[in-house]
Amino acid sequence: METGNRDTGVRAPVDKDVDFANYFCTYAFLYHQKEMLSDRVRMDAYFNAVFKNPHHFRNKVVLDVGTGSGILAIWCAQAGARRVYAVEATKMSEHARELIKANNVDDIIEVIEGSMEDVALPEKVDVIISEWMGYFLLRESMFDSVICARDRWLKPDGVMYPSHARMWIGPIRSGLSEQKLIDLESAMSDWHYFVDETERQYGVNMSVLTKPFHEENEKYYLKTSLWSNLHPNQVIGAPAIIKEIDCLTATIDEIREVIAKFSLRINLDRTRLSGFAGWFDVHFRGSDQNPAATQVELNTAPSEDNPTHWGQQMFLLHPPIRVNDGDDVSISFSMSRSKQNHRLMDVEFTYELHQPSGKRHPPITSKFYIE
Amino acid sequence: METGNRDTGVRAPVDKDVDFANYFCTYAFLYHQKEMLSDRVRMDAYFNAVFKNPHHFRNKVVLDVGTGSGILAIWCAQAGARRVYAVEATKMSEHARELIKANNVDDIIEVIEGSMEDVALPEKVDVIISEWMGYFLLRESMFDSVICARDRWLKPDGVMYPSHARMWIGPIRSGLSEQKLIDLESAMSDWHYFVDETERQYGVNMSVLTKPFHEENEKYYLKTSLWSNLHPNQVIGAPAIIKEIDCLTATIDEIREVIAKFSLRINLDRTRLSGFAGWFDVHFRGSDQNPAATQVELNTAPSEDNPTHWGQQMFLLHPPIRVNDGDDVSISFSMSRSKQNHRLMDVEFTYELHQPSGKRHPPITSKFYIE
Ligand SMILES: Nc1ncnc2c1ncn2[C@@H]1O[C@H](CSCC[C@H](N)C(=O)O)[C@@H](O)[C@H]1O
Ligand SMILES: Nc1ncnc2c1ncn2[C@@H]1O[C@H](CSCC[C@H](N)C(=O)O)[C@@H](O)[C@H]1O
Repeated sequence: METGNRDTGVRAPVDKDVDFANYFCTYAFLYHQKEMLSDRVRMDAYFNAVFKNPHHFRNKVVLDVGTGSGILAIWCAQAGARRVYAVEATKMSEHARELIKANNVDDIIEVIEGSMEDVALPEKVDVIISEWMGYFLLRESMFDSVICARDRWLKPDGVMYPSHARMWIGPIRSGLSEQKLIDLESAMSDWHYFVDETERQYGVNMSVLTKPFHEENEKYYLKTSLWSNLHPNQVIGAPAIIKEIDCLTATIDEIREVIAKFSLRINLDRTRLSGFAGWFDVHFRGSDQNPAATQVELNTAPSEDNPTHWGQQMFLLHPPIRVNDGDDVSISFSMSRSKQNHRLMDVEFTYELHQPSGKRHPPITSKFYIE
Repeated sequence: METGNRDTGVRAPVDKDVDFANYFCTYAFLYHQKEMLSDRVRMDAYFNAVFKNPHHFRNKVVLDVGTGSGILAIWCAQAGARRVYAVEATKMSEHARELIKANNVDDIIEVIEGSMEDVALPEKVDVIISEWMGYFLLRESMFDSVICARDRWLKPDGVMYPSHARMWIGPIRSGLSEQKLIDLESAMSDWHYFVDETERQYGVNMSVLTKPFHEENEKYYLKTSLWSNLHPNQVIGAPAIIKEIDCLTATIDEIREVIAKFSLRINLDRTRLSGFAGWFDVHFRGSDQNPAATQVELNTAPSEDNPTHWGQQMFLLHPPIRVNDGDDVSISFSMSRSKQNHRLMDVEFTYELHQPSGKRHPPITSKFYIE
């Protein structure tokens, strides 16, 4: 674990142009912004957070980190902000500017095109609002930019929107675990046919590549986490909170790695543990000195009525494990940033099943990639 | 058109790391190499080109530009080459090394990991072999690297494999033209619903973004060329050659832009011209001083029995045009590299229909992107 100068470990190794090619590019499409703007759970949470807490916005100076289409900045202006700085790295800033003008708040909002890390504001701000959450909260590592903005631009008594975030993990069942094994087997039988044909037709023996091909496909089919909107009845035990973040005080060192030990109690009989799902919630509670009038929550847990575009990340075990009501799964979890791309994550679960009878299974370790 | 130092216009503006993120990354997967290795038309052509022309390989020094899995290098070694330099930019080089060893030609082949542009060879070579062709021949702009290799490393009397390449355009019919219009309409009606809901629920009027959203989606649905393996009966007139390349002499200036004027004669009655398809062929003919014993062709034209992974690129018109046997479509065509990414192409067609009756339609210009 690194400590000290919090910039070093985070920004130094990132090539800005590569980051643009890999990450920012998608946000330059209205298609993608519209997907977020059509997420009712997300929209309702931010809308209520702003309009049910007018005392946080009226006559205040606000910074919107990653304004995208400009939606949050517009709401802040409509809620009475004196000035809103809306920072956006991509060309989406131009659409934000148009939208802001068309909604008659261009006297309040200043759109600034640029990376938050590079932007200079003319004054400090009372509120930082941002929708920075990626899959399983931390994918995209955008919270780094919010921390950077906070440390530079938030007044000592300022508030963060959202103010808190939590990561959850729950035990799940899913037919996809078996399906992915079948997909891998089919890719491999295809490969074996290919090896035979290549030898027969073209006189080259490819079998030395069978192992690396299997590894590549195992990574793709079995070790890459999957996006899903789970049905609540796929969650077969009580989920656990594995990380709590206070957005007002969190440092990059606190979020660069997530390490947790916890146990999950199965509450369904004669079922299978297909794996684990990860999701998050965030809260809008203002600050201790300056609390929200109405607290708002944005929750991305499995839900029939309130799915989100984030869904949940599934980490599937192959094969699944038979479990029963009352079984405990004790887990060591860790998540760190991918060495190749700091916006992607490497995840590791070491899990051990304890049955009420006292029987224990030996611990198993599974690695996953959040791509 | 630029002339002079051929490096300037091509390599200077390219950020190598971005190029890796955008382009090379896919070639690092065996999955992708296997797709190419499973293309029978491609494999047969290179296999026959090498083994039916042993005099070009026996005791010769060969350079394989972009060796990928190493397949072409192995064939050259099997055909009797004295030495083969196999250059590969990605980590696929490691798999190539394993494959070469397993096939007992590691005493002949030296795998070099690196960009062709940066690599230094210990000697000049008799033959350059490379499979550099992208969609519609020039997508990926990899031929630049072959030209660079040739100018630096090919002996004055050396030969190129392949030796010649041609680009073709043919008039086609396809139901996809109508389908894409429907897709666009459906995206727009979705958008209008979204605009209404956002105003009603969240008090923000998004209609100023309707035009840019339409433009973005028009580009995506109507102006992006489509990959397809056409049935020959979808080609409704004689295709035209729009570009011929002599791989031994071509310069980057000659391929940076492709400009052609030609006309296509419709040979089917009462049909519709849905657009144009672009494809290519390459030939293995050796050189004038040192011709092939057996000439080989690799053809990616529409074909029922011999489809390739390249297929054809379709440029669809919206709406299609009614045409009849004997109609002539005269076309001004241009293709240049995208300003954002030199490996992608911007294409423009200006077309004019002449009926045998003498009736002419006014010229229409359509722009496309090969993404
Ligand atoms: N460091 C940074 N500086 C500026 N913009 C950033 C950034 N990191 C991410 N972004 C932008 O932040 C946005 C996150 S998506 C959220 C968009 C908008 N606030 C909404 O709620 O609808 C994207 O548009 C992305 O381009
Ligand atoms: N400038 C360059 N230097 C080195 N390798 C390059 C290159 N441009 C492209 N390549 C590599 O060239 C390969 C083209 S695909 C062809 C692979 C192999 N020769 C075959 O025929 O199956 C890719 O693996 C790509 O990574």
